[in-house]
Amino acid sequence: MNKDHIELGHGSGGLLTRELLDELIFSTFSNEQIDQKHDGAILPMSGHVVMSTDTFVVSPIFFKGGNIGELAVNGSVNDVAMCGGIPRYLSLAFVIEEGLPVADLRKILESIRHAAEKSGVQVVTGDTKVVERGKGDKIFINTTGIGTLHPKAHIAMQRISKGDKIIVNGSLARHGMAIMSEREGLEFESEIVSDTTHLNTTVEALLDRFGNDIHLFRDATRGGVAGVLSEIATDTAKGVFLKEAWLPLEKQVEAACEMLGIDPLYVANEGVFVSVVNGAIAGEYVEALRSMEGNEDAAIIGEVTETKPGMVILESKIGGKRVVTPLIGEQLPRIC
Amino acid sequence: MNKDHIELGHGSGGLLTRELLDELIFSTFSNEQIDQKHDGAILPMSGHVVMSTDTFVVSPIFFKGGNIGELAVNGSVNDVAMCGGIPRYLSLAFVIEEGLPVADLRKILESIRHAAEKSGVQVVTGDTKVVERGKGDKIFINTTGIGTLHPKAHIAMQRISKGDKIIVNGSLARHGMAIMSEREGLEFESEIVSDTTHLNTTVEALLDRFGNDIHLFRDATRGGVAGVLSEIATDTAKGVFLKEAWLPLEKQVEAACEMLGIDPLYVANEGVFVSVVNGAIAGEYVEALRSMEGNEDAAIIGEVTETKPGMVILESKIGGKRVVTPLIGEQLPRIC
Repeated sequence: MNKDHIELGHGSGGLLTRELLDELIFSTFSNEQIDQKHDGAILPMSGHVVMSTDTFVVSPIFFKGGNIGELAVNGSVNDVAMCGGIPRYLSLAFVIEEGLPVADLRKILESIRHAAEKSGVQVVTGDTKVVERGKGDKIFINTTGIGTLHPKAHIAMQRISKGDKIIVNGSLARHGMAIMSEREGLEFESEIVSDTTHLNTTVEALLDRFGNDIHLFRDATRGGVAGVLSEIATDTAKGVFLKEAWLPLEKQVEAACEMLGIDPLYVANEGVFVSVVNGAIAGEYVEALRSMEGNEDAAIIGEVTETKPGMVILESKIGGKRVVTPLIGEQLPRIC
Repeated sequence: MNKDHIELGHGSGGLLTRELLDELIFSTFSNEQIDQKHDGAILPMSGHVVMSTDTFVVSPIFFKGGNIGELAVNGSVNDVAMCGGIPRYLSLAFVIEEGLPVADLRKILESIRHAAEKSGVQVVTGDTKVVERGKGDKIFINTTGIGTLHPKAHIAMQRISKGDKIIVNGSLARHGMAIMSEREGLEFESEIVSDTTHLNTTVEALLDRFGNDIHLFRDATRGGVAGVLSEIATDTAKGVFLKEAWLPLEKQVEAACEMLGIDPLYVANEGVFVSVVNGAIAGEYVEALRSMEGNEDAAIIGEVTETKPGMVILESKIGGKRVVTPLIGEQLPRIC
């Protein structure tokens, strides 16, 4: 690359585009598909295909624990996993604002490569557009993931029934609070670090072992755990009962939430997912989860009831009960 | 929808997001996959899967002959087709700038629905993000298409050989000149209308009939026909010989290009594709193409040579020859 910053010409489809692709993008992701330099990829697959898409517009693009690049990989990898899929291939599409330092793009590409490697997916096709200064914000990244359906997966809202337990795999609100600290320049005694990670390895192991007893997976990104639980309550017309005391929270995250008056249930996560499982295996399920790296803080946080249909009820630490409503308006824009 | 304009809260993952999805998006695209309201879709497919992605940032979002919505559908449908795929499913991801009139979004969604129907693909999963005013530009749309590989397709740059003919399916430069006229407020005697259309039906019929004799398909979007031919010359290390007199051009497009000093070879198309085929069947191929609706102006425009490796040579109408170089810099930003 001769240039230090991305110019409009890098999105022209001409010589500068070619240079950007050849010297930066193709070389980062070189594989059998990418090397074809075609408009798409031809992929050997069989059985049911799981597909999911997500665009990342997080601001700032670099934060404690990660950057927009790995967020974009993990996001679509996790969405495929949440459907019971084993993610295999990823498309990658950039909208870059004119003026982005090429060094930043390099760093992001490197993170993408690394995150893809860690989660075992291949970047197989892509697109790059450049918009004028002030018509975008540094970089937006869309990823679309495809994979094959796990043979034991049977994930569907309709399978949820009374007595099912609600389980999270780790402590809440870390991604959102990391972004907020970064954005507001807040400093806490111990650093709050985003929980962005790939969930597919964990999910695959859970499906191998518990298959049919898993009724739903849902990652608690935008809208947080409250968002996921509200959806479950609305869509199943069942009640969801939670205990505040059961919610896993890191001390510094809890302190930061209190200081800022933010309810951690609504804060976005990037490595936390909710499982709804057959109550009979819930204990064994949590034990299994806790034994897997990165999921040591897994916990049963609540259960599905026939009372209070369509509502999420939280029992506070001092015993009072309140309704958890879905977020109205916007708590923290551009969290992912 | 209670609101007339998109707000940041519509991207929050909370109640407003749910309202936007339920009342506008899910209802427009209702099908077995979308109705699941999951993070992804589970799709029955078999054989090789073709995947392609494209983000659309065209400005203005409405123009003569179409809008960003149908452009986004046709774009990924066509990219899958160019790989020899039969497009079947589409993901759809929006980045909306705060303040977009809901009426505009409705119109775009309607166009997407219509374009998907015409090309025979299903929108199966999606994502919606909202960014603050001045951090985006009305709406950007990413689509990722997947499909199955046509059993007779064998599309690869390496298959191109000396004597192959280069064929386009219609007249050049209409999309780019339509956008430019819209943007600059230019008026010509007869309107210039974008050529945006889905190419998959045409491509499938060509593959059915000519299969193995088709060595390459490439749509001539950003960078125009010159961009495609430069890539072919570079990647095959063969020469490409063109005759200006053979290039199909509408009169008003030619006049507009002359007036503005723009070479139509570099202008983006959204319904024109280049085929490189076995010279022996080229005549029959063009006849077949011309008999298909929307491809009446198909023409052989040049051939592949062993002389001048890596170069594209154009013989002008008066007999002079010049090298066609790929575009340097940017002729017309945000054309697609």
